[in-house]
Amino acid sequence: MEASVSYSAELTFLAKLSAAQRAHDSILCVGLDPEPASIPESLGRGPQAAVRFLRRIVRATAPHVCAYKPNLAFYERYGSAAMDVLALTLQAIPADIPVILDAKRGDVPNTASAYADALFDSFHADAATVAPYVGLDSIEPFTTGARYALVLARTSNPGAGDFQDLEVAGRPLYERVVERCVERFAADRCGFVVGATYPDEARRLRALAPDRLFLMPGIGSQGGDVGLALRAGLDANGGGVLPSASRSVLYASRGEDFEKAAGQAARALRDAANAARAAATAPGR
Amino acid sequence: MEASVSYSAELTFLAKLSAAQRAHDSILCVGLDPEPASIPESLGRGPQAAVRFLRRIVRATAPHVCAYKPNLAFYERYGSAAMDVLALTLQAIPADIPVILDAKRGDVPNTASAYADALFDSFHADAATVAPYVGLDSIEPFTTGARYALVLARTSNPGAGDFQDLEVAGRPLYERVVERCVERFAADRCGFVVGATYPDEARRLRALAPDRLFLMPGIGSQGGDVGLALRAGLDANGGGVLPSASRSVLYASRGEDFEKAAGQAARALRDAANAARAAATAPGR
Repeated sequence: MEASVSYSAELTFLAKLSAAQRAHDSILCVGLDPEPASIPESLGRGPQAAVRFLRRIVRATAPHVCAYKPNLAFYERYGSAAMDVLALTLQAIPADIPVILDAKRGDVPNTASAYADALFDSFHADAATVAPYVGLDSIEPFTTGARYALVLARTSNPGAGDFQDLEVAGRPLYERVVERCVERFAADRCGFVVGATYPDEARRLRALAPDRLFLMPGIGSQGGDVGLALRAGLDANGGGVLPSASRSVLYASRGEDFEKAAGQAARALRDAANAARAAATAPGR
Repeated sequence: MEASVSYSAELTFLAKLSAAQRAHDSILCVGLDPEPASIPESLGRGPQAAVRFLRRIVRATAPHVCAYKPNLAFYERYGSAAMDVLALTLQAIPADIPVILDAKRGDVPNTASAYADALFDSFHADAATVAPYVGLDSIEPFTTGARYALVLARTSNPGAGDFQDLEVAGRPLYERVVERCVERFAADRCGFVVGATYPDEARRLRALAPDRLFLMPGIGSQGGDVGLALRAGLDANGGGVLPSASRSVLYASRGEDFEKAAGQAARALRDAANAARAAATAPGR
């Protein structure tokens, strides 16, 4: 019998995610996006209020999630305090829960390396979201060593189709993006962002990328239904999807009971995701 | 005769740029991208060295440029100090020289608004670069009020063609991006990023967008030639282009004479740009 080894800092993103999913019986990711106008006034104002709020949100939701996804936009709005708010929030996340830094960076190779260093080395991300438009060489630095990139395929917004749906050789651009990334980057280094608001597109992409992780943001406030998203995105083994909710959990209540309400909202989504997953993978389905 | 009015904080980006071009007899933009390994050791190490270095670079090059373009990747690599390095660098830039924050952000509308607030309100950018893949609604928040977006069209990297060149209805994707943005956003709110390394593509885009500003990065270290880029990108009035160099100016010398060398490199590029512009617009050309 081998000795049990657990060096969480050395686990790859997918291994760490899988362990957290088992430990918390959850495939739910929660987005940590501080919106100043929605943070309860009793916590004060400004960057310190954001840190207080996010740390309590993490405490309330950690038992029900397998990953957290801070979107950097909401931190950068704090100006000079941005990176402190982010660092203090990350510190509160239990070490066994992987962190996806939602940054959607994309730049020429020398610059993309600097972004990847910032996210993975300075902020110790386990994974990061990446935009594909600049080219495959702009994605590469996010996939080296133990790094893991979640490349935008079909996003969750109303205007997602403006460019992503343009027909290239008879098929939409977002399929070409997935196809080229699958050819170029290994499955343990690259997955995709597939909006939970577009289950039909998720189903097409699952056929193209049977072994890739799909981060599916847009559950809740953006209108994505967790059951529909999972039925479309699950892989042949009933896995491979990471549904993500932000505002519907963080701002479930804007009163004094915000912490309790966030915990309940996360638990309810976790349960709904587990039920949808069980139904989709039941024998005789 | 009207009273002379100069409220630089209220000038639009294009008006401020035009005034700086006249005042400095220059159409050159310099990228302010701190690379720790290339900063002279005599300045020390870490974020403070970057601030010292960049402030001296600004002092040496300001007479020869019409805009500065800090790329946020190189600041974010400083982790918690990132936003301080950026803010202290921005403070050193003379008030009449516009600042383009090169961030290439692109996210769903609610998040894109947070990014735009961060860049324009927290860091007082005059313009910002934006990635188009997420859709027109992701670009919109960068074009409201007095904001100005430079949307990625054809980037300067070797892999630029991976997705940007894909054929959509008989023409490359990057042309479609420009066409849709021209339809949707006014000329005083939206221009394009067109790599100086691809003059043929710049020429095609100029035909599609005769009245738009083209930021043309990639002069120097990335291989772009300022004369070729300008001949391809100039508009019918001999304007509309903003060639940009970073490493070839900032790291012209890595010794004690770095400041003088950067000033000379900027002046030489400024002169080359002016000569190319004069030749391209000469009568009987």
